[in-house]
Amino acid sequence: MASKRETSTAVTDTAEDLVKWLGSFGQSKSGGVTRPLYSEPWMEAQHALQKKMELSGLETYYDSVGNLFGRLEGTNPDSNCILTGSHIDTVVNGGIYDGVYGIVASYSAVQKLRKQFGHPRKTIEIVSLCEEEGSRFPITFWGSGNITGNYSLQDAVGKNDHNGVSLLEAMKAAGFDPETYQNPKREDIECFLECHIEQGIVLEKTATSIGVVSHIAGQRRYTIKLSGESNHAGTTPMHFRKDAMVLAAQFITYLTDKAEQADSDLVATTGKLTASPNVSNVIAGEVTFTLDVRHYKKRMLDQFCREVLDHFHQKADHFGFALSYHTWLEADPVQMDQDLQAQMAAAVREENLSYQSMFSGAGHDAQMFGSFCPSSLLFVPSKNGISHSPKEFTSSQFLEQGIQVLTRMLYQLAY
Amino acid sequence: MASKRETSTAVTDTAEDLVKWLGSFGQSKSGGVTRPLYSEPWMEAQHALQKKMELSGLETYYDSVGNLFGRLEGTNPDSNCILTGSHIDTVVNGGIYDGVYGIVASYSAVQKLRKQFGHPRKTIEIVSLCEEEGSRFPITFWGSGNITGNYSLQDAVGKNDHNGVSLLEAMKAAGFDPETYQNPKREDIECFLECHIEQGIVLEKTATSIGVVSHIAGQRRYTIKLSGESNHAGTTPMHFRKDAMVLAAQFITYLTDKAEQADSDLVATTGKLTASPNVSNVIAGEVTFTLDVRHYKKRMLDQFCREVLDHFHQKADHFGFALSYHTWLEADPVQMDQDLQAQMAAAVREENLSYQSMFSGAGHDAQMFGSFCPSSLLFVPSKNGISHSPKEFTSSQFLEQGIQVLTRMLYQLAY
Repeated sequence: MASKRETSTAVTDTAEDLVKWLGSFGQSKSGGVTRPLYSEPWMEAQHALQKKMELSGLETYYDSVGNLFGRLEGTNPDSNCILTGSHIDTVVNGGIYDGVYGIVASYSAVQKLRKQFGHPRKTIEIVSLCEEEGSRFPITFWGSGNITGNYSLQDAVGKNDHNGVSLLEAMKAAGFDPETYQNPKREDIECFLECHIEQGIVLEKTATSIGVVSHIAGQRRYTIKLSGESNHAGTTPMHFRKDAMVLAAQFITYLTDKAEQADSDLVATTGKLTASPNVSNVIAGEVTFTLDVRHYKKRMLDQFCREVLDHFHQKADHFGFALSYHTWLEADPVQMDQDLQAQMAAAVREENLSYQSMFSGAGHDAQMFGSFCPSSLLFVPSKNGISHSPKEFTSSQFLEQGIQVLTRMLYQLAY
Repeated sequence: MASKRETSTAVTDTAEDLVKWLGSFGQSKSGGVTRPLYSEPWMEAQHALQKKMELSGLETYYDSVGNLFGRLEGTNPDSNCILTGSHIDTVVNGGIYDGVYGIVASYSAVQKLRKQFGHPRKTIEIVSLCEEEGSRFPITFWGSGNITGNYSLQDAVGKNDHNGVSLLEAMKAAGFDPETYQNPKREDIECFLECHIEQGIVLEKTATSIGVVSHIAGQRRYTIKLSGESNHAGTTPMHFRKDAMVLAAQFITYLTDKAEQADSDLVATTGKLTASPNVSNVIAGEVTFTLDVRHYKKRMLDQFCREVLDHFHQKADHFGFALSYHTWLEADPVQMDQDLQAQMAAAVREENLSYQSMFSGAGHDAQMFGSFCPSSLLFVPSKNGISHSPKEFTSSQFLEQGIQVLTRMLYQLAY
C-alpha cells in the first residue's frame, strides 16, 4: 500500500489512477470502501489529498469542520472564488467513484489549466467536503451546509453515530476541536461546480457521455420506532401478539407498493432496520427502521410522505402499538443554475461529446450550494447504474470526458 | 449487590428470595437479565449456586460442558438417580423466573426433604443445565443434550455466537477445556423432573395453580439468507430494484398470515433480522432472518415448514434473488411419561390444589430427557403469559405451590 501511495504522487496520474489511489484508503475486503466522516481512513485520505495538492502548487487549508481546500490564487485581487469539488466520505462498503470522482475531476482540471495558462484571473478553489452521505451521522451535507450557512456548530449537538459516538466527539478526535470552531460560512463564492458519477442507469441506457443536471430531487428521511410487546415465541398464540417485526414488515410492503403506484420518478426505501431484542425465539418488542423518499417535485414528495406516515399511525393505533418518528432530513428539490447549464451544454458540444439534460435522484453537495450561489452539476455514466456498492464502475474514457468539460468551463469562468 | 448476595446464603430463603438472588447475576438496566451461556454472569451464577448447594450439605460437581450437579446421596448403593432441575442461561434481556424457578424449586424441595427425612433411599441430584435457550449459540439443549447422549463435543464444532466466538472457545474461556472433555452421558438416571413457569396465559385464564404437561411442542428453527442487489436508494427506479428488505418483509407477512390460518396451536416467528449494509440511503443487498415454528403434531409442523420454504424458494427464484437456508433445530414433539403425569396429578390433589393437563409451546430440557428416561414437567402460572421479558412474573404463592407438588413427588420416588 505504502509504495502504491508513493507512486501515486507522480504528476502523470490519470483520473482512473487518482480514483483508485483514493479508493485505497478504507478499502474493504470485498473491494469496496468504507470511509465514514472523521474516521481514520477518512482523515488519512484528506491528508494524502492535501499533500498531493500542495505538491502540485496549491495552497491548502481546512475550515473548522474539516472541509479541505486547495487554492489557486487569482491575479485579480477583487475577484470572487470559483469553488469546485465534491466529497470523499462513503457509505458502508460503498464504491470508489462516488464523490471521489468530483474531487479528482476538479484537481485534474486545475492541473491542466495551471500548467497551460498559469494563474487565473479569478481564484479557483478545490474542495473536499464533509459527510455528504449522512451515513455516519444523521446530518447529510454537514460540510457544504457549514460553508453555505445552512448549518453551524449547534446543529451538531445531539447527533450520534451507530456506536453512540457524538458528532462533536468525533470532530475533536479528528483534530477539529469544537472549542476552536469558527463559522466556515463563505461570502466570496461566485459559483460552485461539481462533477459526479450518475449513480443511475439513464446515461448508459441512452449511450450519452454527459448528463447536464437541471435539478436535484428533494429528499425526506425519517427514522421510525415501532413498539409492540416482546414475548415468548413458543407460548404466545398468534392472536395475542404485538409483534413489531410483523407490523414493520407490513409497513415496508405498503411503502413499496405505494411508491410503485405513485410516480415512476418517485423512490422510497427502507435501507436500515433494527429489531429488539433481535433473538430468534423472542417476539420482537421493538423495531426501528428508516424511510428515504425522493422526488423532484416538492408537492408530490410532501403528499406521499404525509400519506405514508398517516397510514403508519392509523395502523399502529389500530393494533395497539406505540409509534414515533424522527424527521432528520427534509431537503426540497433544487434547481441548478440555468446559465451554467447552458454554458455546460455549449462546452460539451465544443468537446464534440453527447449530453442530455436530466434530474438527479441522488442528493449532492450541489443542492446545498444551489440556493446559495449559482451551481452546476455534471454527470458521467455509471456502469449498470450501480453505486453505493463495490460494483460501482465508470470507464476511464467517461472519467476523462467529464474532466474535459469541467476544464473548459473553469477556463471560461476563471481565466 | 454484594450484601444482597451475602444474605442470600441464609437457610430461610423463600423461593422468591432465591429467584431474585439468581436474577441479580447479569441484571440489565430494565430490570431484566442477560445471562448467556459461558458468559461472566452465567459463570458467577453457577459458582454462587454451587456454593449455596455445598452450604446446604450437597456434594457438587460439574460435567465437561458445565452442567452443575448438587447430589444428595441415597442410602441404597444400587439405586439409580432421580434427576431434577432446569437451566440458568437466559435470552437477551429476559425475565428472572425462566429456568431459574426450576432450579430453585428442586433446591427448595430437596432442602425440605433432607431436613425432615434425612438421606433418601435413592440418590437425588439437582442439575443446572447449559444453553437451554439457544440464545448465544445455535444449539439449544446443549447441556441436557450431552447428558442424554443427543450431543457430544463434535456437535459444538462450527457453532459461533453473534460476535463470532466459537462454542469451543467459549467453553475453554469458562474453564471447561474441550481438551479435557469426557462424555457427560449418564447411565444412572431413573427419571427427570422439571418445574417451570408456563410462559403462556393458559393457567392464568383458567385460574389454575398447576399445569401437568402431557407433551412438549416440536420446534423447527431456520436461518434464511436472501441476497438481492445493493444499490443507491435515490437513483434506482423501483422497478429496477432487487431489494432484499422488501422481499423479506413480504416473506414475514406471508409466514404470519399462513400461521394464523393453519391451526390455533401453531406459532411461527421471525424474531431476528439483519440487513446488509443496513444504511438508510442504500438498498439492502442482503437480509438474513430467522424462522421459529412450533406445534405439538409432527406432521402439521413438517407440512407447514415445507410449504413455507417452498413458497420462499419460488418467490426468490421468480424475482431473481438468491435464497439459502440453514436448519439449526429440528425437535419433534415429545410425550411426557404418563405414569409420572398421573402421579403428579395425584400429588396436586393431595395438596388440595387445582391443575390441568396441557401441552407446552416452549421447548424445555424435559424434552431432551423425554426420549431418554421417564420425564415429567410441571408448570406454574405466568402473569399475563409474559416471559422472555423483564415483565416476566409469577407470584410467591404459585412458586411455593409448585414446590409443594415437587416435594411430594420426590418423596414418593426417592424415600
